[in-house]
Amino acid sequence: MDGIQRSVGRPMPRADARAKVLGQARYVDDLSLPGMIYGKVLRSAHPHARIRSIETSGARNCPGVVAVLTARDIPGENSLGPIIKDQPILCGDLVRYAGDAVALVAAETEEAAEAALARLEVDYELLTPVMDPLAALEREAPSVHAGGNVATHFKVRRGDVEEGFRQAAVVVEKRLFTQRVEHAYLEPEAAVAAPDPEGGVTVWSSTQYPHRDREEVARMSGLAQSRVRVHQMTTGGGFGGKLTPHAQCYAALIACKTGRPAKVRYHRDESLIASHKRHPYVMNLKLASDKDGRLLALEATYVADTGAYLLEGRSVLTKSMTHVAGPYYIPNIKADGYAVYTNTVPCGAMRGYGVPQAAFALESLMDEVAGRLGLDPIELRRRNALDTTLPTTTGQILPASVPFKEMLRRAELRAKSLRPLLQQAPKGKRRGLGVGCSTRSIGSIRTPSRSTAVVSFQRDGSVTVACGHVDIGQGSDIMMAQVAAESLAIPVDRVRVITNDTALTPDCESTSASRVTYLSGNAVRLAAEKVRNRLLELAAQELRCLPEELKLVDGAVLRGEHGLKLAELFSKHTLHNVTAVAEFIPETSPLDSETGQGRPAGTYSFSVHLALVEVDEGSGQTRVLKYATFSDVGRAINPLVIEGQVHGGVAMGIGYALTEEIKMTDEVSNASFATYLIPTSFDIPGEIEVDFVEDPEPTGPFGAKGFAEGSTDPVAAAIANAVSDAIGVRVERLPMTGERIYELLHPPQPS
Amino acid sequence: MDGIQRSVGRPMPRADARAKVLGQARYVDDLSLPGMIYGKVLRSAHPHARIRSIETSGARNCPGVVAVLTARDIPGENSLGPIIKDQPILCGDLVRYAGDAVALVAAETEEAAEAALARLEVDYELLTPVMDPLAALEREAPSVHAGGNVATHFKVRRGDVEEGFRQAAVVVEKRLFTQRVEHAYLEPEAAVAAPDPEGGVTVWSSTQYPHRDREEVARMSGLAQSRVRVHQMTTGGGFGGKLTPHAQCYAALIACKTGRPAKVRYHRDESLIASHKRHPYVMNLKLASDKDGRLLALEATYVADTGAYLLEGRSVLTKSMTHVAGPYYIPNIKADGYAVYTNTVPCGAMRGYGVPQAAFALESLMDEVAGRLGLDPIELRRRNALDTTLPTTTGQILPASVPFKEMLRRAELRAKSLRPLLQQAPKGKRRGLGVGCSTRSIGSIRTPSRSTAVVSFQRDGSVTVACGHVDIGQGSDIMMAQVAAESLAIPVDRVRVITNDTALTPDCESTSASRVTYLSGNAVRLAAEKVRNRLLELAAQELRCLPEELKLVDGAVLRGEHGLKLAELFSKHTLHNVTAVAEFIPETSPLDSETGQGRPAGTYSFSVHLALVEVDEGSGQTRVLKYATFSDVGRAINPLVIEGQVHGGVAMGIGYALTEEIKMTDEVSNASFATYLIPTSFDIPGEIEVDFVEDPEPTGPFGAKGFAEGSTDPVAAAIANAVSDAIGVRVERLPMTGERIYELLHPPQPS
Repeated sequence: MDGIQRSVGRPMPRADARAKVLGQARYVDDLSLPGMIYGKVLRSAHPHARIRSIETSGARNCPGVVAVLTARDIPGENSLGPIIKDQPILCGDLVRYAGDAVALVAAETEEAAEAALARLEVDYELLTPVMDPLAALEREAPSVHAGGNVATHFKVRRGDVEEGFRQAAVVVEKRLFTQRVEHAYLEPEAAVAAPDPEGGVTVWSSTQYPHRDREEVARMSGLAQSRVRVHQMTTGGGFGGKLTPHAQCYAALIACKTGRPAKVRYHRDESLIASHKRHPYVMNLKLASDKDGRLLALEATYVADTGAYLLEGRSVLTKSMTHVAGPYYIPNIKADGYAVYTNTVPCGAMRGYGVPQAAFALESLMDEVAGRLGLDPIELRRRNALDTTLPTTTGQILPASVPFKEMLRRAELRAKSLRPLLQQAPKGKRRGLGVGCSTRSIGSIRTPSRSTAVVSFQRDGSVTVACGHVDIGQGSDIMMAQVAAESLAIPVDRVRVITNDTALTPDCESTSASRVTYLSGNAVRLAAEKVRNRLLELAAQELRCLPEELKLVDGAVLRGEHGLKLAELFSKHTLHNVTAVAEFIPETSPLDSETGQGRPAGTYSFSVHLALVEVDEGSGQTRVLKYATFSDVGRAINPLVIEGQVHGGVAMGIGYALTEEIKMTDEVSNASFATYLIPTSFDIPGEIEVDFVEDPEPTGPFGAKGFAEGSTDPVAAAIANAVSDAIGVRVERLPMTGERIYELLHPPQPS
Repeated sequence: MDGIQRSVGRPMPRADARAKVLGQARYVDDLSLPGMIYGKVLRSAHPHARIRSIETSGARNCPGVVAVLTARDIPGENSLGPIIKDQPILCGDLVRYAGDAVALVAAETEEAAEAALARLEVDYELLTPVMDPLAALEREAPSVHAGGNVATHFKVRRGDVEEGFRQAAVVVEKRLFTQRVEHAYLEPEAAVAAPDPEGGVTVWSSTQYPHRDREEVARMSGLAQSRVRVHQMTTGGGFGGKLTPHAQCYAALIACKTGRPAKVRYHRDESLIASHKRHPYVMNLKLASDKDGRLLALEATYVADTGAYLLEGRSVLTKSMTHVAGPYYIPNIKADGYAVYTNTVPCGAMRGYGVPQAAFALESLMDEVAGRLGLDPIELRRRNALDTTLPTTTGQILPASVPFKEMLRRAELRAKSLRPLLQQAPKGKRRGLGVGCSTRSIGSIRTPSRSTAVVSFQRDGSVTVACGHVDIGQGSDIMMAQVAAESLAIPVDRVRVITNDTALTPDCESTSASRVTYLSGNAVRLAAEKVRNRLLELAAQELRCLPEELKLVDGAVLRGEHGLKLAELFSKHTLHNVTAVAEFIPETSPLDSETGQGRPAGTYSFSVHLALVEVDEGSGQTRVLKYATFSDVGRAINPLVIEGQVHGGVAMGIGYALTEEIKMTDEVSNASFATYLIPTSFDIPGEIEVDFVEDPEPTGPFGAKGFAEGSTDPVAAAIANAVSDAIGVRVERLPMTGERIYELLHPPQPS
């Protein structure tokens, strides 16, 4: 590649940036098809009830109504779910949370459909709900599903924790709580579906996984998957919230039953009430250290409230448990995790996927241990940091690309330079500095996970890359283009990446789990290398030499000084294009069901964050003044994309730490952005410092690995540690609202 | 496949039939994009002129006009053409026919664009045109292009024709003329183009070759091919007329220059004036036979008028010349073909591609020879019929699937049963019976030709086939589905065939040359077999046996009585789909430039047609009373599609034989369907008899070969022979209008 402008490593604007800035990007709701009708969902107001009957005639007779559909109208299977299919598309007998879908009205206008919802009469037999996960674990608790309320139980067993605790100089024990939060993507759920005149249905959706949309719509409608075609439209954020195709199924159901195109779009309140959230956790931890700050044992019990349906609950919980020791080596571990059903809004995938909760808990205890030992928190972390010889929670040794200690070194330098600011708090304010660390396995916890790419090199030296994962704003399109361009020695702007058509792109699984760069990036690299090798082979035949003697440079094959233009090569062979398909499957092994030991991922990424906060003694309000991040990316394919990911991830983490909380009475009670408080630009520090360490991952594409969720994972942990540092009291519950911190600052005096 | 409902061989409705019948099919003109503007082309009224200047300000100032574009606005290369790029997209200096494009107006409405055309002032220096191909060959003729008017000269040389003529018992010699005709697709040319916010342009087009559209639009606009994406819309006929993307380039040029979506659609008169036609031929032939009716020698000179631009002229002429001996063995051949430029509307590809002209000529002489020898015309043909031992015009021996003699046998039987009708002509009418025979090489004359298919088998046992050729109404989608279904032992309705997206389907070359069934069908079969083999391999691993012991049946792999469901197999391997790519390249060799000998195709198809006509002595009008076809299809993948193809092909042939003729003064003078007479249902016999012979082609998919154009090839020949039989005078010129036949019936008496 000597003398060639490299593609990998260059900061390049995202492929979708220009269209979004100019308002040219087309979202689902920009789509309007001739004869299109609108669907609205009737949702239960009761958290637990039996449906005795649904009287639809009033709604059917409303002006503009085209169809009223209930469970019995579903032609195929009336169930959804990424792991188990426990969620009905429309409830047939039971409703399990206030927000559960009961009926679907299709009308000429959205207003007409909404008006008709009020005319639907559902006769419910009210059942006792269970709203709290700990209560749900009690023997007499009402069952949300047949089979009891424990949806899953995951165990980690290593060494002998009792022995560890016996040898300990310090043991700290805590119960910590995290809250239910909302993804708060700018674009709520939406889908358009149209009957296909050749039979079948076409769906346009806002989605993180179009091939799953296809699969679920096919199951629901009783169609072959080949007769369902899903086009992802520009997707205004996902964060794990657009992995299960509810709106898609509703739109497709209407299209199938009425023969007309249909749009279903959630308004914000519906999205807040009905869509899944981040799991709230109750976490009991007991952590032991020797007198030198070597961790000896961890005992932990995590209870995750998965709400009314499992969704990704099992995997989220598994992710938490397989990261229970964080980025540290702890020789003895006994940990139990439970995902528990309740009659609350379901919880599922969300950026971080169980790691932010686990990091908040463990990092809190790390600071306690450090405090008890009189050690600097970063020093304690260094003494226990994973390296290329020590095993992760699941016993996996990472033979390379573990730059955690280097990241701690950089963080320590930055902490040193920030410390003087701690002394400059204005009157009535307190300042604190906190560190948060985390690691994460890259890719879904399900093994094997895989991506497939098709790379096609055209006669004119331009390239098309087809992949089934989608770019939902995270920047994968430009990065895949960079990988292909680097592999084929062409400029990035000659590469086009296409991902949004299930009929013609291979299933690359979901855009989630920080997996796309590593898995799809590898698939693209492998396919591009196949293309390159084929071009060199053909050229070698022409030049009567070995392919190894040849080098590909932009538009030509060079042998020393001499070259052969690719255009000539294509012309000579009357080739139209050279196309190759490649699949990448990381080396993994299943997790043992008794010990949780195994190899769930091909690689791990690390994060170290520093937060400097200021707490107002009068209001309890916390401001993040400085925020510094140190990220392990293996190799930065596109530094600009990394920066964007860190900015967004930290902002989301700040909301999680300080203000966001879905509140439930029977149903979500703060279903608006006026009462559900996501941070605004005023709540985010003016600069989020982005530093990343490049320690190439040998199995990654050009050394890269995923890291995206690492930008959110330790944020609440770092801020909680900073707040605790500021106020001198441990924070044990998120979010750290003004009220809660005020209470910690001003504890009720014993009377 | 025992016990399984076979897919190949079943009559099944075309995939597009339902949508077309219900009016749901979406043509380019059904597409309307927000902010879309309209383009209209200013065309020269002069057949030959130099452009001194174009004054655009008047047009620019017309209300609603967005842009006025001329040659200098083209960002890339200002040329088009499938073989050589001799046609400007907008003429820069010379116009070469009345209809040549000079400027392009884009406006808010089509009417505004049309109004502005009248305000464009072009200063022309008129040049002498050459309007006749024989005149164009003269030394002093004006040159249409630099380099003289002979665009191509193709030679066939075999044996010693002089010796053949010396040994002959009978020699007949004739000059025959065929006319210029129009494809007359129901949908005229149309394209929509939109700028892509990521850079580049998306084109929706009515096309027979979307990948060529992509290539030409990319060249014109200076974009990488990967930045141009072409979607074929439902295409309302092509017949060779939609192979060169004129409207696509105009729409794309407007989109590139204005940043707005643009539609360009030809009205019927514009289509008739500007678009290419079937080449008119002047053919001199001399054919010799011994006394037993064994053909001894053929000498031929064909002059094809390719008009102002070559388009496919070289290939069409080559096709004629490589079929100069038709389906017969003639030991000595000397044939010269010339494609000649004139200042007339260009000629290019059209269903039959040079064979209908050649068949009309040769079959006329065959009847003359038969008459001179007193032999039945069918008998003469049988005595010279190609079989698996005798070489074609180019010296190729077809080792299998040459059922020509069987077809003649069937035709003879039918002729026998028709003959009594000859005696039943009403008063003032004369009846005649004629036979026409032809053969054709399957696939484009360019070698090697190729098709590539991607077949993807989904978890649920449904299949997607991606191919780059398009279905323009001929039924390839259903046939490709049948091939895939047969290969994978699944029902046809579980297969979806997608062809209309250049970004995601492999370039399969054009839908033309009767090539899709044979080339793409083979590619689909090969890819499906790869998928099948992979499934059997995976199953063999599970079942611990050899893949050879296993059999695929719908949704399962069977080993004797025992089975493994594919769903289980996919689940076990966490597979999403099994995908394979395959390319098919028929075995061919180039044609020798001195002798025309070589192997231009993997297989040939044969046609035998019988026409029974009635000529009105008073008006000279001819009616086709009975029409019987015998087609060689190798193996009928879908008899219904074959029937449809024959019906359409024969109807088109009847128009060619009897009524259709593009007339030229300076420009096309009958540019309307009121004066250009295509046959209506009243002109077509109530029943077109369809018989086909299945003699499987070993290299074809399940034995199939292409045959489509064979339904048109011999129609004019058969009808001309029938008319000659009826009136007792040889017809030497097409079309056989009432006026011409009247003149032959009532020749001017020498005064």
